[in-house]
Amino acid sequence: MDYLIYFDNSSTTKPCETAIKYINDSLNNFWGNPSSLHTLGMFSEEKINQARGCIAKSINALTEEIFFTGSGTEANNIAILGAANALKRRGNRIVTTAIEHPSVLNAIKNLEQNGFEVVYLKPDKYGVIDPQELTNAINKNTILVSIMLVNNELGSIEPITQAANAIKQANAPALLHTDAVQAFGKLPINVKTLGVDLLSASGHKIHGPKGIGFLYKSKKANILSPVFGGGQELGVRSGTQPTPAIMGLMGAVLELQNLNEHLNEINNLKQYCISKLQDFCSINSGPDSLPYILNVSVTGYKSETILHFLESKNIFVSSGSACAKGKKSHVLLSCGLNNKQIDSSIRISFSRFNTKKEIDALCNALQDACNTLRKAY
Amino acid sequence: MDYLIYFDNSSTTKPCETAIKYINDSLNNFWGNPSSLHTLGMFSEEKINQARGCIAKSINALTEEIFFTGSGTEANNIAILGAANALKRRGNRIVTTAIEHPSVLNAIKNLEQNGFEVVYLKPDKYGVIDPQELTNAINKNTILVSIMLVNNELGSIEPITQAANAIKQANAPALLHTDAVQAFGKLPINVKTLGVDLLSASGHKIHGPKGIGFLYKSKKANILSPVFGGGQELGVRSGTQPTPAIMGLMGAVLELQNLNEHLNEINNLKQYCISKLQDFCSINSGPDSLPYILNVSVTGYKSETILHFLESKNIFVSSGSACAKGKKSHVLLSCGLNNKQIDSSIRISFSRFNTKKEIDALCNALQDACNTLRKAY
Repeated sequence: MDYLIYFDNSSTTKPCETAIKYINDSLNNFWGNPSSLHTLGMFSEEKINQARGCIAKSINALTEEIFFTGSGTEANNIAILGAANALKRRGNRIVTTAIEHPSVLNAIKNLEQNGFEVVYLKPDKYGVIDPQELTNAINKNTILVSIMLVNNELGSIEPITQAANAIKQANAPALLHTDAVQAFGKLPINVKTLGVDLLSASGHKIHGPKGIGFLYKSKKANILSPVFGGGQELGVRSGTQPTPAIMGLMGAVLELQNLNEHLNEINNLKQYCISKLQDFCSINSGPDSLPYILNVSVTGYKSETILHFLESKNIFVSSGSACAKGKKSHVLLSCGLNNKQIDSSIRISFSRFNTKKEIDALCNALQDACNTLRKAY
Repeated sequence: MDYLIYFDNSSTTKPCETAIKYINDSLNNFWGNPSSLHTLGMFSEEKINQARGCIAKSINALTEEIFFTGSGTEANNIAILGAANALKRRGNRIVTTAIEHPSVLNAIKNLEQNGFEVVYLKPDKYGVIDPQELTNAINKNTILVSIMLVNNELGSIEPITQAANAIKQANAPALLHTDAVQAFGKLPINVKTLGVDLLSASGHKIHGPKGIGFLYKSKKANILSPVFGGGQELGVRSGTQPTPAIMGLMGAVLELQNLNEHLNEINNLKQYCISKLQDFCSINSGPDSLPYILNVSVTGYKSETILHFLESKNIFVSSGSACAKGKKSHVLLSCGLNNKQIDSSIRISFSRFNTKKEIDALCNALQDACNTLRKAY
């Protein structure tokens, strides 16, 4: 592949060297079934528990509070359906937001069809949920609050700790879940101070492999998993553990030291990018959004046209989230953006491997696009 | 790792060279998100569809009838819960066997708790379901028949085509599902002549990586997936596809040419093994069982003791299935074996990489064990 300028890191990332090395170590040297009673199995199990400990440490959890899944989607499904299964006799209300990822929204819609009352909180224009509205929505009948830590399209950071406080104040039986797929490995996370019971994350968003996610489940939280089988991962996620992908995730996490340093560097890139784009683009991401994500509307041009123009120059961005292929973004709609802003929006998402020179190339190419292409409206 | 004599291939297998090569190709060269609209995404999507076609061809299915999952367990869950979701208004009866894998049995038990009537067919002493009993169990109220193609502990081959015929005869709305995790890549499978609507398989049982399975779903069969999210895999299994593991599965399948030749070779090994063991072991697998699996009871000795004795000589077998860590085998119980036979049972499971010399080493070690160890009863 030629040299790529890749600004679609919130869709997926290039696997890092340590991840690839660890995956190969597993494929070649410890391929035993972790459930086997002999030493080959126990060796694999030990390695998995080493990865579990490493990930636990990175979010201030206990080793036994980390459960491996096949994806971030699966972690979200298990958290949400599992919490509802466990608590359905203690209340009927679920509080979430209108801007969650489809793996959260569609799981909750399924619960709604099965009789749960669901509150979908609306964000402000930057994609941020109002803490007071959130507090008001939670009552003593609430069994689940599921709010993403960082929105995947705008980078908005949501008021999770306020949700934890509101649950206490309301004396609700609710478990607090956060989809941290876009936050993990970027924003420093401490599950204890955040106050969550359940947290989902994914490997391939942080230079690990596709095919691995994890669920943090506080040892105090009980769920009834919707996954049935041999009882692996203490019954939270049955199925033979994907050892190579687990080791790849550990490799990716080990490469992620100094999150705050990366945050600063990437914020500098983002501010630089904004300064170059603000004359001909409208900036959709808010001032307090996660540095890694910048959503802009290239006013007058369809985002797909821009995307293809950029890729002809080997520059890659996203039009909305990769999961919602072709559909109008439910996130930007909820933020009250108009159709033209939505249709011309692109998401520029950074990684620690991006450089200032690459930002120059991107901004010049976008300027070029506006000079060359015919306006759509 | 030292040289291993590995006879636990029904638990998991060593990843083959082609699988490892393909996984690395994916990690290094096409790591785009298959849902992304740009060329990096489309390139990944093309590779996934190439793998889909390769797997489809191997079981005489159409490319669009193969859906990738994170494990064999997930494929079984989606098939069973998805069929019940889709057909619950057309009937209430589910027919299965008492010797299914926990990922089938526990999914069906969940449906039973939710009001479905379930028939658990009992096998004969070799683990084979009686075709007539199977036919009698299926009536016009039956919405799902789920029977494994090959049992994981005994290697018994089940009468799937009879189930297909019985569904037609009864004019039942039932979908026919088979858990083919132990059959795929070993027994030649033709989904059309087999008559199944749904078939599950796994990568790591055939020298592919852990973390990948697939579901064959006939284009005529409709299910409502229990997995919620971005709608990948046509809505059957949401979640970013695990491209590296998918490519690894394709690599493993490409190495599997001439299944019938392997079947013959491995049957010779199995018969040779039986001839050496029959004087001091009772043979639990039936004469028509799959050559790859041989279950024996080392009369008088606890299987765990035997297992550890063997592993001290770098020989690996399994005591029952790897998934049922420590529990008494529900399969052998259903076959009517007595407690002593069950407690002394070991599973010897072959791969195409095993040799006659390794069988000699195994049988000599077992003879040794009986000469050295104290009898438990």
